[in-house]
Amino acid sequence: MDIRKLFFDNPARRRIYVRKGNVEVALAEVNLSPTRLRDGTSRPNSPVRIYDTSGAWFDESFHFDPSRGLPKLRSDWIQKRKGLEIVSQTESSHKNPFGERKILRAAKGVSPTQLWYAKQGIITPEMEYVALRENLAFLNGIENKISVSSPQNSLFLQHSLPGQSVEITPEFVRSEIACGRAIIPANINHAELEPAIIGRNFLVKINTNIGNSPMASSIEEEMEKMLWAIKWGSDTLMDLSTGKDISLTREWIIRNCPTPVGTVPLYQALEKVGGIAEDLSWETYRDVLIEQAEQGVDYFTIHAGVLREFLPFAAARMAGIVSRGGAIMAKWILAHERENFLFEHWDDICDIMASYDVAFSIGDGLRPGAIADANDKAQFGELKVQGELARRAREKNVQVMCEGPGHVPMQMIKANMENQSAWCDDAPFYTLGPLVSDIGAGYDHITAAIGAAQIGWYGTAMLCYVTPKEHLALPMRDDVREGVVAFKIAAHAADLAKGHPGAQYRDNAMSLARAEFRWNDQINLSFDPGRAKAFRARGDAEFSRDNSGAHHCSMCGPRFCSMRASLEIKDKLGNPMNLEEDTPGLSCDI
Amino acid sequence: MDIRKLFFDNPARRRIYVRKGNVEVALAEVNLSPTRLRDGTSRPNSPVRIYDTSGAWFDESFHFDPSRGLPKLRSDWIQKRKGLEIVSQTESSHKNPFGERKILRAAKGVSPTQLWYAKQGIITPEMEYVALRENLAFLNGIENKISVSSPQNSLFLQHSLPGQSVEITPEFVRSEIACGRAIIPANINHAELEPAIIGRNFLVKINTNIGNSPMASSIEEEMEKMLWAIKWGSDTLMDLSTGKDISLTREWIIRNCPTPVGTVPLYQALEKVGGIAEDLSWETYRDVLIEQAEQGVDYFTIHAGVLREFLPFAAARMAGIVSRGGAIMAKWILAHERENFLFEHWDDICDIMASYDVAFSIGDGLRPGAIADANDKAQFGELKVQGELARRAREKNVQVMCEGPGHVPMQMIKANMENQSAWCDDAPFYTLGPLVSDIGAGYDHITAAIGAAQIGWYGTAMLCYVTPKEHLALPMRDDVREGVVAFKIAAHAADLAKGHPGAQYRDNAMSLARAEFRWNDQINLSFDPGRAKAFRARGDAEFSRDNSGAHHCSMCGPRFCSMRASLEIKDKLGNPMNLEEDTPGLSCDI
Repeated sequence: MDIRKLFFDNPARRRIYVRKGNVEVALAEVNLSPTRLRDGTSRPNSPVRIYDTSGAWFDESFHFDPSRGLPKLRSDWIQKRKGLEIVSQTESSHKNPFGERKILRAAKGVSPTQLWYAKQGIITPEMEYVALRENLAFLNGIENKISVSSPQNSLFLQHSLPGQSVEITPEFVRSEIACGRAIIPANINHAELEPAIIGRNFLVKINTNIGNSPMASSIEEEMEKMLWAIKWGSDTLMDLSTGKDISLTREWIIRNCPTPVGTVPLYQALEKVGGIAEDLSWETYRDVLIEQAEQGVDYFTIHAGVLREFLPFAAARMAGIVSRGGAIMAKWILAHERENFLFEHWDDICDIMASYDVAFSIGDGLRPGAIADANDKAQFGELKVQGELARRAREKNVQVMCEGPGHVPMQMIKANMENQSAWCDDAPFYTLGPLVSDIGAGYDHITAAIGAAQIGWYGTAMLCYVTPKEHLALPMRDDVREGVVAFKIAAHAADLAKGHPGAQYRDNAMSLARAEFRWNDQINLSFDPGRAKAFRARGDAEFSRDNSGAHHCSMCGPRFCSMRASLEIKDKLGNPMNLEEDTPGLSCDI
Repeated sequence: MDIRKLFFDNPARRRIYVRKGNVEVALAEVNLSPTRLRDGTSRPNSPVRIYDTSGAWFDESFHFDPSRGLPKLRSDWIQKRKGLEIVSQTESSHKNPFGERKILRAAKGVSPTQLWYAKQGIITPEMEYVALRENLAFLNGIENKISVSSPQNSLFLQHSLPGQSVEITPEFVRSEIACGRAIIPANINHAELEPAIIGRNFLVKINTNIGNSPMASSIEEEMEKMLWAIKWGSDTLMDLSTGKDISLTREWIIRNCPTPVGTVPLYQALEKVGGIAEDLSWETYRDVLIEQAEQGVDYFTIHAGVLREFLPFAAARMAGIVSRGGAIMAKWILAHERENFLFEHWDDICDIMASYDVAFSIGDGLRPGAIADANDKAQFGELKVQGELARRAREKNVQVMCEGPGHVPMQMIKANMENQSAWCDDAPFYTLGPLVSDIGAGYDHITAAIGAAQIGWYGTAMLCYVTPKEHLALPMRDDVREGVVAFKIAAHAADLAKGHPGAQYRDNAMSLARAEFRWNDQINLSFDPGRAKAFRARGDAEFSRDNSGAHHCSMCGPRFCSMRASLEIKDKLGNPMNLEEDTPGLSCDI
C-alpha cells in the first residue's frame, strides 16, 4: 500500500492550516487556475477551501509510518482537564504494537465530557476547533472580504442565498451541545482525533463501516479501507470487525485514524463467549466496554432499546431482524426469558462512558430491513425507548446520538425524522441510508443515497454509508470509495437544501469553472478528481479520432456547445465574460 | 456485438406474453426457486412478472438480424384507422437500408392521434395495451387470486399497502389521455413500437439519451447503446446525434427499437445549414420535422418557449444556457433580433405533428445548469410559455409533455413540479435529473438519481437519465448501463412512494428471498442480475479463504448472521419459517 501515492495524487489540492483564536484547523485548499481574458491578461480565481478528513496523512511533513501512529493533536487540551487519572491498562487480548500508552480515566464523580463542559458554560478547545472547521463561509472569506467590485468573486456574492447566517461561533457550538442537539465524539484516550461535530445545525456527516468478518479480510486490508475512507471524505469510521484479531485491528485503526471511531462492543463480547449469544453476560460486556474505552473508541453502538415486548412484532415481519446487534440481543432475551441486560445496566454503562467521554450511538436493533417492515411497531417502539435512554444518558453527562433505519420508502422517511426529533429531544439522528427500495442489489449505494439525501435535508446529522456490495458481500476498498463518494454527494445535497452557510460556495466555483471552460478546476473541485480526470481523459481519447487537432470536447463538438454559445449571448446582452477566444475545451450538459 | 448473449444471460428470466381483451402484452417473468422446508418438502414460489422493455430482442424466436428490424406489432391497429394516406417518402439524406417503407400520413383535416381518439371516447389498442402492461397487480395475480391460506404468498397480502386500487383499466387510460394528463407517444410510422404510457398516474418512466457527436461514436456503437438501454429497462430513447449520418443512424435505431424514440430535430436542421445557427430557417426546420415524422420518431423536443424577453435573465446567470437547443435558438434570436421562429410557427408545427401522431416534448431551453441558477426568471418564464404552448397543441389534438430541469437543490424541487402542474395543466413532466448539486462530476448519475426520485414521487412522469460521464465526456455503452440502472432505482422508488398498485410486489418477493436465504432469487429479482451475481461471486471467493467448506457468507459468518438469528426468533415466537436447517448462504445488512 503506497500511502503517499494515495493522498498526493492531485497537485491542485493541498492541506493547509488556519488559525483563529486558540485553535488551528486543517483544511484542504483547492487551487484554481486563472481565467484567461481576451485582452491577454488573466484574472486570478481564489482557491476554494473545503472540509478535509484526511488528517496528517495529507500533510507532506508527516512520517507516513502507521506503526508510529498519528500526532496527538489533543494531548495538551486533554491534559488541562481536571480530574483525570492515569490508570494501568486493563488486560487486553493483544500485545500493543504501539508500546505502552498512558490510559486516562476520570476520577470518581468527574464527567470530563463535552456535554458536561457545555452545561457548565465552558467552551472546550474541541468546540473552538469544530466551530472554525464548520465555518466554510468564513474560511472562504465570503463574509466580509467580498465586494461586488472584486470581479472574480462577484458571482458568488450575487448568488449567495439570502438571509444566511454566515458565522458558526464556539458559543453556538457549546449551546448546541449543552441542549443535546449536537455531539463531539472524542474519547480522552483518542488524542489523535481531529474533532468533528455531529448535529442537525452543522454540516451533515457521513460514516464509513469497515471491519473484517470471520471469513474475510486482514489488518492491512482494514487499514487500507480506513485510509480510503478518510481520503474520500468520511467523517467517522466504524470498525465492525467480527473476525480475527478484533482488538489488535482496532488498535491499528484508532492510532491512525484522524476521525472519530465507533464500534459495536457486542461483537467483541460475543467472540469472547465463543459466539454463543446465550452465554453473553453483563460482566463480559462491561469488560469489553472498558477495554475499548481505554483504547480510545469515540462512540459505542449499544442496542439497549431492543426490549422483550417488541420481539413478537419483529417476529411477525417479512424480514425479521436485520441488525446483527439486535438479533444477538433478541436471541439472548428469548434464551433467558429476561429483559435486555443492556437496558437493565444502562446506568452502569453511562458511568463507564462518562469516565472516558465515549458517546452513545443508541442502536436501532429493530430497524426495518424491508420496505414492507418500515415504520412498524417494532421499529417505533424501540425508537421511543431510545429517547428514554437518551434522556438518562444526558443526565449522566454522556453525549448521545440515536441510530435509525434501514429500508424505508420515500413517503415514509419524514415520519422517521419527526418522531426521532420528538421522542429523542433532538438528539442527533444517525441513519443507515435509508434504502428506498429492496431491489437495488449491486447498486444499493444509490438506493441508499436517495433516502440519505432526503433524511439529511430533514435534519439527520449523520448518514451511514452503504456500498454497492450491500446485501451481497463484504465491502473491500474499492467499494468503500464508491460508498463514501455516493454519501458525500447525499450529505452535500442535504447541506445545500438546509442552507448551511458557505456550502454552495464550492458549487458556485464549479459552475463558474464550467462557464469559463476551466476543465482542470472542474476536475479538482469534484468529490473524486481522480475519477473525473480519468473519465475526461477517455473522452479526450474519443475525440482524438477526429485527428483535427482542434480543441473540442467529445460530447458536442464546437457547433453544439451550449456553453460556447452562452459566452456569445452574455457578450451580446451586456454581461460579457471576455474569455480568450481559443479557450480550449468545451463543456455542456445536453 | 453478440446480441443473444446480451439478452439471454439469465436463465431465470424469460419473456412471456399475457393476453387480455384484444391485446397481448409482453413481460419478463422471473422464476423463483422453491423454499426448502424442514420436513424435506419444498414450497413453490410464484414467479414475479415485471415490466419489460426489451422487445423481440428478448424473444427466443426472433431473427436477431438488425438489418431486418423488429416485427411490426402495431401494423394492423394502425391500418384500421380512418383517414390515413400512403405518401411517397420525402427526400431523405440517406439511402434506406431497410428498403422502401410505406409512409403513412393523415389526410387533410384528420388527426389520428391518441389524444383525438381519447377525446372521442374511443379506446385504441394502444390504450388497451398499456392498461394491461401497467397493471402489475393483475399480472402478478395479487388482486383476486391470493388468499391468506396460500402460504407461499400470504406475506405479500399481509404487507400489501392498504387502500390501493389494483386495477388500471383501458377506460382509465383513455380518460387520462383525454384530459392531457398522460400520453402514448406512438408515431403511425413506428409500427415496431410496444406502446408505453407516460403520465403521473402510471409507472414512472425513464429515458435514455444516446447519439453520436461530431467527435465520437459510430452507427454500430449507437445501436449497441440502444440495445443496452432497453436490456436494463429504459422506457424511451432519445437519439441526440449531432455527428455524421444523423438520418441513417436514426433509421437503424427506429427500425430496431421497441420503445418510443424521441429526437431534437433542431440538431439535424443545424447540420443542414452547416452548423451556423444564424442560417436556420423555418423552411429548413419544417423539412426536418417531416423527414423525421415519416421515419417514425415518436416525440420531438422543440425549444419554442425560449423567448426573446427571457434572454437577458439567462445572460445574467452563473452558467448561462446549458441546453444545446436553447443556446442555438438564443443565438438565432439575437442574430435576427426577432422572436423564436419555433414559437412563431407553433400552429404549423402542431399540424405536422398531428398528421403522424408525433408527441411534443416541449423543451426547456433555459433550464438551470447550476444550483445558483435554479428556479430563476429565465426558467420559470419559459415554463409558463410551455404551458401556453401545451394548451394550443392539445387544441390541435397533439399529445404533449413538458421538459424540466436540470440543476436544482432539493429544497427547490417541489416548486418545479407544482408550477409545472399548475401552469401546464398537468401535462406529463419530463425532467433531466434534477441534479441536486454541481460538484458530482464522475458520479452525476447519483447526483441526478437523488433529485429524480424526489421529483418522480411528486408527480413527474418521466425521468431523463444522467450517466457518470455527464459534464465530462460522451457516454458509451457501459455508461448507459450505469445511468439506466440508477434511474430504474429512482423511478421504482417513486412508484413505491406514489403507491403504484403492485409496485411493491417485487420488493416483497426480494425481501422474502432474503429472509429465506434464496440467494439466486435475490440476484434474479434485482435490476442487474449480472452485476449482483458477480459481486456475490467475489464475496464467495473471499470466504473460500476460510477453507472450511462451510456454507457461510463472507459478510458475517454464521455467528453474526442476523437473518439466521431471525429464523430462530420467528420459530420461538410462533411465526416459524420452517426452513431446512442447512440452507446454504446467509444474508444481512449490518
